[in-house]
Amino acid sequence: MTAQPSVSYSITVRLEAPARGSAVSQLTRVVEEAGGALTALDVSGSGNERLRIDVTIAASSSEHAKRITEAIDAIDGIQVGRVSDRTFLLHLGGKIEMQSKVPLRNRDDLSMAYTPGVARVCMAIAANPEDARRLTIKRNAIAVVTDGSAVLGLGNIGPQAALPVMEGKAALFKRFAGIDAWPICLDTQDTEEIIRTVRAIAPGFAGINLEDISAPRCFEIERRLREQLDIPVFHDDQHGTAIVVLAALTNALRVVGKDIGRVRIVGSGAGAAGTAILRLLREAGAKDITVADYHGVVHAGRDDLGGPDSDLRWVAQNTNPGGYTGTLREALVGADVFIGVSASNILTGEDIATMAPDAIVFALANPDPEVDPAAAREHAAVVATGRSDFPNQINNVLAFPGVFRGLLDAHGHKVSLAMLLAAARALADVVKEDELNANFIVPSVFDPHLAPAVAAAVRAAVDAERGS
Amino acid sequence: MTAQPSVSYSITVRLEAPARGSAVSQLTRVVEEAGGALTALDVSGSGNERLRIDVTIAASSSEHAKRITEAIDAIDGIQVGRVSDRTFLLHLGGKIEMQSKVPLRNRDDLSMAYTPGVARVCMAIAANPEDARRLTIKRNAIAVVTDGSAVLGLGNIGPQAALPVMEGKAALFKRFAGIDAWPICLDTQDTEEIIRTVRAIAPGFAGINLEDISAPRCFEIERRLREQLDIPVFHDDQHGTAIVVLAALTNALRVVGKDIGRVRIVGSGAGAAGTAILRLLREAGAKDITVADYHGVVHAGRDDLGGPDSDLRWVAQNTNPGGYTGTLREALVGADVFIGVSASNILTGEDIATMAPDAIVFALANPDPEVDPAAAREHAAVVATGRSDFPNQINNVLAFPGVFRGLLDAHGHKVSLAMLLAAARALADVVKEDELNANFIVPSVFDPHLAPAVAAAVRAAVDAERGS
Repeated sequence: MTAQPSVSYSITVRLEAPARGSAVSQLTRVVEEAGGALTALDVSGSGNERLRIDVTIAASSSEHAKRITEAIDAIDGIQVGRVSDRTFLLHLGGKIEMQSKVPLRNRDDLSMAYTPGVARVCMAIAANPEDARRLTIKRNAIAVVTDGSAVLGLGNIGPQAALPVMEGKAALFKRFAGIDAWPICLDTQDTEEIIRTVRAIAPGFAGINLEDISAPRCFEIERRLREQLDIPVFHDDQHGTAIVVLAALTNALRVVGKDIGRVRIVGSGAGAAGTAILRLLREAGAKDITVADYHGVVHAGRDDLGGPDSDLRWVAQNTNPGGYTGTLREALVGADVFIGVSASNILTGEDIATMAPDAIVFALANPDPEVDPAAAREHAAVVATGRSDFPNQINNVLAFPGVFRGLLDAHGHKVSLAMLLAAARALADVVKEDELNANFIVPSVFDPHLAPAVAAAVRAAVDAERGS
Repeated sequence: MTAQPSVSYSITVRLEAPARGSAVSQLTRVVEEAGGALTALDVSGSGNERLRIDVTIAASSSEHAKRITEAIDAIDGIQVGRVSDRTFLLHLGGKIEMQSKVPLRNRDDLSMAYTPGVARVCMAIAANPEDARRLTIKRNAIAVVTDGSAVLGLGNIGPQAALPVMEGKAALFKRFAGIDAWPICLDTQDTEEIIRTVRAIAPGFAGINLEDISAPRCFEIERRLREQLDIPVFHDDQHGTAIVVLAALTNALRVVGKDIGRVRIVGSGAGAAGTAILRLLREAGAKDITVADYHGVVHAGRDDLGGPDSDLRWVAQNTNPGGYTGTLREALVGADVFIGVSASNILTGEDIATMAPDAIVFALANPDPEVDPAAAREHAAVVATGRSDFPNQINNVLAFPGVFRGLLDAHGHKVSLAMLLAAARALADVVKEDELNANFIVPSVFDPHLAPAVAAAVRAAVDAERGS
């Protein structure tokens, strides 16, 4: 599978070319022949003899961008100058900032926003702590917390290298749900230290979004924080993914006309996402789920399940009614649904061909799916991936902004399975009956109805739990 | 001392009045007679018979505002409706927010700011951690950290009630130095927990501003964090205050023509601010300093000095060359300078009269000074307070924005006494020779040259230490 040119590998090449002759007209052809996509050409300076031109080109990788640049440089008369990487340019100085919402023009402004006026606001909150939700940023602020141990598909790159992802996440929270999120990158990967730290910083936030913390520590961290904090704790890699997968599966099953309670589901991956998906699918009524990991199908007879409270043992005890003991491939034969959150290119089109008719394949590994989606599509009725250049992108941004919007608006204290289920159903229902088809099982992340719909469902779930 | 009407106790009173007759014309007089200042009158609705009017009034306290409202309500024909407190209105929903600096309009934007493009930026930082200062918010972000144990003059009101102050501080950082500060309010007042937590959250920040943490814990927290972190740690209550006091004293001494190495200085208060001021004054060349606390003058013979490493013992060993053992009042006789960072109204004008000729009095207790500044001014040459309604306000906002701007720009790793000294000198020099007088010893906080001047001095100090 050759990757398509993408804006995420987009470069701007500044070059000089002769004002006369064919050099400039060769540019587009040379870029195309090198496999790039020329998306903009801007003459930024002109003289009698020479032109200065900024050419923006989408490539498919850093190496590809380099090859394209070399091909341009080889054109007779053209001299390549500075080459800017647009993604790096965009990150210069960071992607988010703090802004004051109040004017600070003169002493009067200062004396209301700061001393001495602020003292009365402090005393009001001291007298009635719930007023913090009214008179401070706690109303709308969440912490995006990571230890940098499992960042995207990049592994344990540490807290500072994780910061660009956390900033991006914060920007998405604002863009899609108006939430003020701030990244907290932790200089520890110790479970107890992480729990202690998040508990300590909680007073200034109305929610905690855990991000890119590796399994199995993420399970315990989330569980213990939920017990100890009075604000919602959400581990996006688990619950965000689970919500979007369940929503997508709900709509995929509608497309093929199957019932979640009757399909046989095979999952690949028993990490943070895999386990959370499993729990939510069970809550939604799925009965026949089999999970495989590196060592093959998870079953009660395996000797690597860990202690009595381990999450893998829980998986073994609550899945695999068919009693499989072999490989993922063997379990896949005749299955209705495959959900992969594991590793790239572990299956082929032929494996998908062994599944039941009207099979559903979610191959969500990053950056490359478990199976080539084009090959899978030849044998399956519905295919979804995590990639932005195929239809049906399973993207957590479909869920987390709306979920937190709902939690904040309802002053929610806990995240429950019922809320996740409500969010997934609302997300699925954003795709209207007359829009639904095999290539459109989830809405666009830019659908303006999306976050409000998810938020409303979560608010209702919070209110229902409060009432009960 | 009666407080003046202040915008920090400003209210907007919505009222209905008859369209005819004298009720409206009585308004201004009634407010004035009640001691308020009517600053705006807005007719927000009008009919044939009645007017709806929003009147904005500065009062001197909440009780005063209530009395004024009652006086208005007593005017024949006027009915008072909703009364809004402008300071509370300004705080609704919090004073700061997070903003994205990058556009997120379409999938291309997402794929550069978030996945998949962001992964390359993460890997660049993983390969070269210093790049975090270039490609993330770490370049310009600081944490404003408090445990809520000593908030303004309000005492131990806890982390949530402290949040409005921290938000205000963050807003000031942005307003005066373009810095992105985020409040971190800690759910612990344990020294070890605070140190552990700040250390854990440090990777995402380029500086730590400790705020409103009570003495003596603040000393150890700051000292230990400075040892453990590679980013600067600044306790504003200590160092910010010390910088501004030294700058103000430098200029006050210029006014009276005395030399810091030859004056006798008496301080009141041996807490966070008092101890930091003492250290910086010594660094600046002050030789004869005597400090008093609740129990009188600090001297080596006192039996309440604590262990061999206690800060109070250090004070006793490094002050009081005159060997005073009595009260603050006794030590004050003949002194050139009084610096109070302690409690309200502990001295009278008569006490100030016992000081040397051309005395300098800094009475900085909040909300009310150690001595009535009007009474002090009768006997002293220069008087400064922490109040915004007198000349010479000693306000930390004169220092902290510029100090952190300099530290961030120079990629400073530590705060040193030499930097604080450089900041104080730069701050003093912002007042030009032809501006300097007994009522103008510090510049306006709105002076556009202020923060850049302080920042430049701190940058130079960082560079000098790096070079040495």
